[in-house]
Amino acid sequence: MSTEIQNELEKMRVKIIANLDEQKAHDFRIAFLDLHVYEQAQIFADLNVAQRARVYRYLTPDEVGEIFNVSEEEPALLAGYFEEMTPRYAAQVINSMYTDNAVDILAFAKKKNLAKYLKLIPSEDASEIREMLHYEDKTAGAIMSTEYVDIVGNQTVRSAMHIIKSEALEAETIYYIYVIDDEEKLVGVLTLRDLLTNDDDIMISDIMNTPVMSVQVTEDQEEVAQTIKDYNFLALPVTDYDDKLIGIINVDDIIDVIDEESTEDFSGLAGVDTEQGTDNPFMNAWTRFRSSALPLFLGFITILLVEHYENLINKATILAVFISMITGAAGNAGTQSLAVAVKRIANNDDQETSWFSTILNETLTGVIVGFCSGLIIWGIVGVWKANFVLGFVIGVAMLCAITFANLVGCVIPMLMDKVNLNPSIASGPFISTLSDVTSLLIYFSFASMFLKFFIGQ
Amino acid sequence: MSTEIQNELEKMRVKIIANLDEQKAHDFRIAFLDLHVYEQAQIFADLNVAQRARVYRYLTPDEVGEIFNVSEEEPALLAGYFEEMTPRYAAQVINSMYTDNAVDILAFAKKKNLAKYLKLIPSEDASEIREMLHYEDKTAGAIMSTEYVDIVGNQTVRSAMHIIKSEALEAETIYYIYVIDDEEKLVGVLTLRDLLTNDDDIMISDIMNTPVMSVQVTEDQEEVAQTIKDYNFLALPVTDYDDKLIGIINVDDIIDVIDEESTEDFSGLAGVDTEQGTDNPFMNAWTRFRSSALPLFLGFITILLVEHYENLINKATILAVFISMITGAAGNAGTQSLAVAVKRIANNDDQETSWFSTILNETLTGVIVGFCSGLIIWGIVGVWKANFVLGFVIGVAMLCAITFANLVGCVIPMLMDKVNLNPSIASGPFISTLSDVTSLLIYFSFASMFLKFFIGQ
Repeated sequence: MSTEIQNELEKMRVKIIANLDEQKAHDFRIAFLDLHVYEQAQIFADLNVAQRARVYRYLTPDEVGEIFNVSEEEPALLAGYFEEMTPRYAAQVINSMYTDNAVDILAFAKKKNLAKYLKLIPSEDASEIREMLHYEDKTAGAIMSTEYVDIVGNQTVRSAMHIIKSEALEAETIYYIYVIDDEEKLVGVLTLRDLLTNDDDIMISDIMNTPVMSVQVTEDQEEVAQTIKDYNFLALPVTDYDDKLIGIINVDDIIDVIDEESTEDFSGLAGVDTEQGTDNPFMNAWTRFRSSALPLFLGFITILLVEHYENLINKATILAVFISMITGAAGNAGTQSLAVAVKRIANNDDQETSWFSTILNETLTGVIVGFCSGLIIWGIVGVWKANFVLGFVIGVAMLCAITFANLVGCVIPMLMDKVNLNPSIASGPFISTLSDVTSLLIYFSFASMFLKFFIGQ
Repeated sequence: MSTEIQNELEKMRVKIIANLDEQKAHDFRIAFLDLHVYEQAQIFADLNVAQRARVYRYLTPDEVGEIFNVSEEEPALLAGYFEEMTPRYAAQVINSMYTDNAVDILAFAKKKNLAKYLKLIPSEDASEIREMLHYEDKTAGAIMSTEYVDIVGNQTVRSAMHIIKSEALEAETIYYIYVIDDEEKLVGVLTLRDLLTNDDDIMISDIMNTPVMSVQVTEDQEEVAQTIKDYNFLALPVTDYDDKLIGIINVDDIIDVIDEESTEDFSGLAGVDTEQGTDNPFMNAWTRFRSSALPLFLGFITILLVEHYENLINKATILAVFISMITGAAGNAGTQSLAVAVKRIANNDDQETSWFSTILNETLTGVIVGFCSGLIIWGIVGVWKANFVLGFVIGVAMLCAITFANLVGCVIPMLMDKVNLNPSIASGPFISTLSDVTSLLIYFSFASMFLKFFIGQ
C-alpha cells in the first residue's frame, strides 16, 4: 500500500490513542470508527488493559464484535479480553460476531465463563455455538460460517432479491445464494450476478445451477481449500450427513487455511515451527532444541556406527576425510525427496499416480543423481589421490547412499500419510540424520570390503 | 468433494470423449457444456490434437475462451493450441477471454502469430493487450484484470444499479464497484452489498467508502497478496503513476500468488523445485543434480579441510567418530534459522524488528541451543569414553558450530533480500554444506589445541 496512506494511518493512530488516554469518548469514536475495521483491530491489539477498558465503554458491543471478527491476535488472548468485560457486554459482543469467529475464540474460554456467556445469548444462537464447538479442528465444520442466505426455489427473482436485501446486513456473504427444498436439503446455487442479469419474474428454480458442489461438515479443510482453489469459488456450502445445508466456507477463511497448511509443510521440512518465532531467544531455543533433540540422539547411533569402524579408520584415515561429504550428499538427497513427497501429498497428486510408480520414480531419480555424483567423485578422488579403488569405494558408497536417502525421503511421508499422520512432521532433520546413519553404514562396509585394495597406497 | 459427484464426473467424461470420437457434435455440446467450466478444462487438457480440432469446430470461440480462462495447463501449451486454430478463431477466443488470462498465454505466442491475432482483434482491446504484455512479471500489472465496473459519483444508486446490470456479464467481478472522477482518478469504492442496502435515490458520492485502499501497477504481487489477506478483500484496485484506475486484482488470482510464493520458499529450503516434479526420472534427476552440484563441490572444500587434519585424526581416530554428529547438528541448526529467516522476510516482519536485533536474537538462540547440546555431548562422551577433555572439545565445538550455523542461516537470506535477490534461493543444501565446512574447521582447530590433553588416554 502507498506510503502516504501508511503515514496517514500512523497519524490517526497517535491521535486515537491520545483521545483514549484523555478520555475524549466522542473524538475517539469519530476518529476510530472512520478507520477500516482491520486497522481498528491493529490499533486495538496495541492497547493496554486500562485503554481496552475504555474502549469497552466508548464502543458498542457490535462495534467491538466487528474488531474481534477480523483480529489477528491469538484466540486465547481474545478469550481473555472477554473476561475484562461484563458478562452481558461480552455476550453481546459474541452474539454480534460471525459464529465461526466467535467459536474460534470461545474454544479458549474458561468452561464456567463460556456457560455464563451462552446463558446470556439468544438460545438459538447459543445452541449453534455449542454445536460448532464440537466440530473437530481443521474440518469444514470448524471453519464454516453459519451466516449465509438460503431461499426456496419456487419464487421469482424479484421476491428472492427482497429476501437478500433484508438479510444483506446479517450474512457474511450475499454473493452466493443457496436454494434449499422443504427438507432444508441443498438443491441449487445462484450468484447475485445471476439474479441481477435475469428478469424479475423468472422462477429461481429455472435459473439455479445444479448440481451444487458442496463439502461434508467432516471434510478436511485442505480438501475444501483445494476445491475452492480449483473452481475459483468465493464460497462453498457445507452439508451434514443427510445433505442438509448447515453452513458455508468463505474464500477469505480458505486463504488462512492455505497459509496455515503451507507454513506447516515448510516448518516440517526445517524441523522448526516458523510461526512460533518470538523475540525471546530462550523460547526460540526451546522450540528448536525440542525438534533437534531427536536427531541429536539419532546422531549417537551414527557415532556408535563409526566407532565400530574406528579400527578401519585407523588403518586408512583417508576414509575419515570423506565422511562429511557422503553424509552431506545423502542428507541433501533425503531432504529433496522429502520435500517433493510432502508437496505431492499436499497437492493430492498421489491420487493420480500409484504408490508403486512414485517410489520407483524416486528410486530411479536417486540412482541417476547418485551415479553422476559418484562418477564425479570417483574421477576426482582417483586422479587426486592417484587411487581409483578408493575413488570407486567412495563413488559407489555415494551412489547407494543417495539412492537410499531418496527412497527414505519419499517412503516415510507416504507411510505417515497412509496412517493419517501429517506427513509434514516427518521433519528434514529426522530424514537427514537417518540418511547419515545409513550412508555411513554403506560407506564403511564398502570400505572394509575393498580395504586391502587401497590401504597403504 | 463427495465420491458420488466424482463418479458422476467420470461417467460424463467417458461419454463426452466418445461423442467427440464419434463426431456427434450435438450430443457433445449438450453433455460438455452442462459441466462446470473447470471440469470442461480438465477434460480438454486430456484431448489429443485430432480431438481438439473437433472441439474447435463444435464449440464457439467464446465457449473455448471460457475454458482457456480457467485452464491450469502451462501457458506455453495453450499458446500452442492457438496455432491449431484458424487465426480468426484464435483471435475470437483471445478476445472473449479476460485480458489478464489472455496476456499470460500470449506472452508465449510466436511474435508473428501474436501480430496476426492482434490485427484481428478490435484495436482498443488489442492495444490493451499490447500494453499489459509489457508489465513486469510478478507485479500488480501482470496479474491484474481490466474487466471491472467503474462509475461516477454524482448519480443515484438506481442509475448505478442499471450500469452494473448492463456490465454484469462482461466484468470479472461486479461485487466491488469503483468510483472515479472525470479524470478517471479513483475516488471511492462500494460493494454491491452497499448498493442493495441503500435507498435507490441516495447519491453514490454520499455512500461510497473513502479513502480507497489501492496498489500501484508496479507493486510486487506479494505485497498485493498481503493487503488482500489482511483486509479480507475480494478484489483490490490497481492505479497507474497518476492514480488513474487501470485494473483490479481478484482474490482468486491472489490465491494462486500465495501458492506460488509459498512453494518458492518451500522449494528453496529443500534446494529443489517441487513443482517441476515429472514422471520422468531423468528430468527429475537433472533438476536435483543441478541444485546439489554446488553443495557437492563445496563438499570438496570440507574434504581438503579434513585432509589438512588427517595427521590429527591419525593420532586420535576417535575424532573421526564425531565428525558426522557435529556437521549434522550444525546443518540442522543452519536450516532451521534459514527457514525462520525466509518466513520472516516473506511476512515482512523484518520491517518491525531491526536487522541488528534479529541477528542478535538468532545468535543468542544458537548459543542456548548449542550450549544445551554441547553440555549433553560433554556429559555423555565424558562418561562413555571416561575422557571429559575429549567431551569438552566436542561439546564446545558443537556450541560454536551451532551458533555459527544459526548466524549464517539468518544473515545470508537477509543479505540477499537487501540486494533484492529472492531469499528463498539461499537453498538449504547450500547453507548446510556451508555449516559443514565451518563446523569442522572449528571442531578440528579445537581438537588440535587440546590434543595433548586427551590423546593416548
